[in-house]
Amino acid sequence: MSNKPRTAITPTRDENYAEWYQQVIRAADMAENSVVRGCMVIKPWGYALWENMQRVLDEMFKATGHQNAYFPLFIPLSFMQREAAHVEGFAKECAVVTHHRLEVGPDGKLVPGGELEEPLIVRPTSETIIGDAFSRWVQSYRDLPLLINQWANIVRWEMRTRMFLRTTEFLWQEGHTAHATREEAVEETMRMLDVYATFVQDWMAVPVIKGAKTAGERFPGAEATYSIEAMMQDRKALQSGTSHFLGQNFAKASGIEFLDQTGAHQHAWTTSWGMSTRLIGGIIMTHSDDDGLVLPPKLAPAQVVIIPIFRTDDERPRVLEYCNSVARELRAQRFADRPVSVIVDERDERGGEKVWHWIKKGVPVRLEIGPRDMEKDALFVARRDRGHKDKQSIARTDFVAGVAAMLQSIHDGLLTRATAYRDQHTRRIDSKEEFYEFFTAAREQENVPVAIHGGFALTHFCGDVALEEKIRNDLGVTVRCIPLEKSEPGVCPFTGKPSAQRVVWAKAY
Amino acid sequence: MSNKPRTAITPTRDENYAEWYQQVIRAADMAENSVVRGCMVIKPWGYALWENMQRVLDEMFKATGHQNAYFPLFIPLSFMQREAAHVEGFAKECAVVTHHRLEVGPDGKLVPGGELEEPLIVRPTSETIIGDAFSRWVQSYRDLPLLINQWANIVRWEMRTRMFLRTTEFLWQEGHTAHATREEAVEETMRMLDVYATFVQDWMAVPVIKGAKTAGERFPGAEATYSIEAMMQDRKALQSGTSHFLGQNFAKASGIEFLDQTGAHQHAWTTSWGMSTRLIGGIIMTHSDDDGLVLPPKLAPAQVVIIPIFRTDDERPRVLEYCNSVARELRAQRFADRPVSVIVDERDERGGEKVWHWIKKGVPVRLEIGPRDMEKDALFVARRDRGHKDKQSIARTDFVAGVAAMLQSIHDGLLTRATAYRDQHTRRIDSKEEFYEFFTAAREQENVPVAIHGGFALTHFCGDVALEEKIRNDLGVTVRCIPLEKSEPGVCPFTGKPSAQRVVWAKAY
Repeated sequence: MSNKPRTAITPTRDENYAEWYQQVIRAADMAENSVVRGCMVIKPWGYALWENMQRVLDEMFKATGHQNAYFPLFIPLSFMQREAAHVEGFAKECAVVTHHRLEVGPDGKLVPGGELEEPLIVRPTSETIIGDAFSRWVQSYRDLPLLINQWANIVRWEMRTRMFLRTTEFLWQEGHTAHATREEAVEETMRMLDVYATFVQDWMAVPVIKGAKTAGERFPGAEATYSIEAMMQDRKALQSGTSHFLGQNFAKASGIEFLDQTGAHQHAWTTSWGMSTRLIGGIIMTHSDDDGLVLPPKLAPAQVVIIPIFRTDDERPRVLEYCNSVARELRAQRFADRPVSVIVDERDERGGEKVWHWIKKGVPVRLEIGPRDMEKDALFVARRDRGHKDKQSIARTDFVAGVAAMLQSIHDGLLTRATAYRDQHTRRIDSKEEFYEFFTAAREQENVPVAIHGGFALTHFCGDVALEEKIRNDLGVTVRCIPLEKSEPGVCPFTGKPSAQRVVWAKAY
Repeated sequence: MSNKPRTAITPTRDENYAEWYQQVIRAADMAENSVVRGCMVIKPWGYALWENMQRVLDEMFKATGHQNAYFPLFIPLSFMQREAAHVEGFAKECAVVTHHRLEVGPDGKLVPGGELEEPLIVRPTSETIIGDAFSRWVQSYRDLPLLINQWANIVRWEMRTRMFLRTTEFLWQEGHTAHATREEAVEETMRMLDVYATFVQDWMAVPVIKGAKTAGERFPGAEATYSIEAMMQDRKALQSGTSHFLGQNFAKASGIEFLDQTGAHQHAWTTSWGMSTRLIGGIIMTHSDDDGLVLPPKLAPAQVVIIPIFRTDDERPRVLEYCNSVARELRAQRFADRPVSVIVDERDERGGEKVWHWIKKGVPVRLEIGPRDMEKDALFVARRDRGHKDKQSIARTDFVAGVAAMLQSIHDGLLTRATAYRDQHTRRIDSKEEFYEFFTAAREQENVPVAIHGGFALTHFCGDVALEEKIRNDLGVTVRCIPLEKSEPGVCPFTGKPSAQRVVWAKAY
């Protein structure tokens, strides 16, 4: 008989990583697929996580001088065509509105009516529609820099979707800024990349590598794209945020012009940058285990859950009262600039059900409190970053006084563990043979399933586009980024040509 | 020569109310029409107001036990048809997605490609798509009540649009709840109507009448619709929030069934309720004057603006330092449970420009501080609810200590003024002649323009649908609501039939 309770995740990460991921989401009740192809429903537990992420990011954007605004969902078809690379990049996967009412058809069924003169695209990103607004808002150098952010829903008609990671509709923020000089726009691009890296590392407890994209992986229409890349537990890379230096491409396409201090007309320099609900997938895939979701404490919808344990109806009110008084004391403590958030699970369920309910939901700290604990004025404490049997009794006053430190310690532990995992599966590779072996041979060498092998290869690269394409076709591996933290120069192992620095190769979501 | 500076609003309310409204929005830089038909761009000043409204409402929803979630933007066409009245109500004005990519057409231009098997509707409201999710989430009486809210964008293909009041795309929240009994669902419907009334009166400083809608004005598919109705300065009514008791109509259409405590299958009872960016239009039209926007202090993006006044470059740093130290002291004060929000206007503009800039933007309290004020350690204070020349010098410490009380007094004053205006233009009318005169004759009797006449008529009504329709056709006047606070019973002046209570008749937005 297995020690595993029936409520743990099946299959495990090792058995089937992709299916494990879906089951973690299901067990934590974060989201579900909807009837609309490729669209998901974000359920309260998943959405509360997103709200916390939004709140922190929004504060970071405002602290760096940005203001929120809102632009139309629809983009006229003609706008999409203004920037050649842009339309090429997005035309193949967009929802097109062609009619503006429903009519009763000949067979009595509803059919689209009122055909539009010009079809509208549901925004796959908003450079063109926001560029149009900026062209009115920017007249003089005094109007610059213009620093705008939008929280919005986005639609890209993806063929293969997976909850949070790739869905037809998703939620995101998109920053759009305009500047008087190239230097200022580049500076903004890098500033927001840093904001993203700080958020992902300091709040999500996920380590990232900051770097530039190769030409093939750039945002359509950008002069340069930077990203932060994280390693998931299947050793694939997740692009976790991108910041684009758009040069004057979109300013020219949209007519964003200003009079400079000498009275001359100039095109502005623009940037854009975005993060999305995809990050929730990154949190799940980085920290969770075979018992379900593991949430980073700074973003968890609840940081502490209290489970009252009682056997009789007599005990019930006394235990609940005690639990609620502990909850009040905890809520008076602060962690990550906010009151500690606490749930007291008063539901009429068995204690064991409740324990597994909250393990699967990933709450960082779990308290079990029964009459015997109350007598001792002590709490039975379990940390989600440790095994589910690893519990200890802690005096109530000690626990309350130390709860913030414990949450911080869980955060630090998650980050350390994720960093160690990434480093363990990152290899400096200097030969073509070793490179190919790294991404293919693992399934023979180790007893690991198909999905989990390889990792990050730090390998020199001459930059040849055809070579990158060949490697993608051979191995499904691409250059995730050219790290900003440069290695020594060297030689490309594939072509023997010189290479300025090592780049990160990996399979990617 | 006029005393009015060129920066005040032209035309005035009396001259052309509709145009005045547009110009207030423009002068405050809150929003603008976009190139996409009927869609607006909400600019930072307008969006910051919406963010404050969202924050307060969201806290109120959570305090009443609701959780946020997110549902798909797209609704399958077949879903719309599940509730007969619902499709009737929304089919005529919806955006229809028929294709999922763009292709290069024969003339080299992009055309829609990839026709969908089933067209998708961009959500005009989400009862059907959320009902579909609820049908999976609700199995047992233990799953009830289910209390969900969504913040989302909505599309209704309106023919005549006006910024904030009626736009093709708008932002809103929609609450959707399911209950085990009719009583609980009715209670929820009324609870949320009360939440709305509290928000609009206590935060927006706009008085409202709570009441039920007549059959003709009900939400399509609802058993009963309740609303709060406010009077704008042109004496028209603005429906400012609605709460619908949906009975079992949508539960039957979507299959929301549960096993009750006896083990019997039952359909749930559902509600929905919503508030939108339309409320921003209500704020503008209730409080603003011929100098521009007037913001209610509890929701203003900035509650105090400090305008440094200096003549020489020598004075500049000293004055700015002083202004910033006042700002810090003010930010340490609290009003409406938040730190007082303060802007120091350090822009290189003339003092007079800055003063009018912030008057037009509606900031509740304006400080002008120059070297002479600094010497006296006093501030020149102007309140936006008084004339722009009405300024007084107040000792710095007194002002700082009293800023919250001043903001509260402005709130109270705005609410009192709006209530007095409404009451002044509300008339108990007991004859058909007086009723018709009230809504038509004002333009002859008084020196007021076409748009501003009439008001709220409190008149008995037998409830006859054809009569309501005739009055709408004759006068453009409808029953705004049947007040929850009942009057004495009486006789319908149009038919002579008995009437249970007076109802509110008015022209409406």
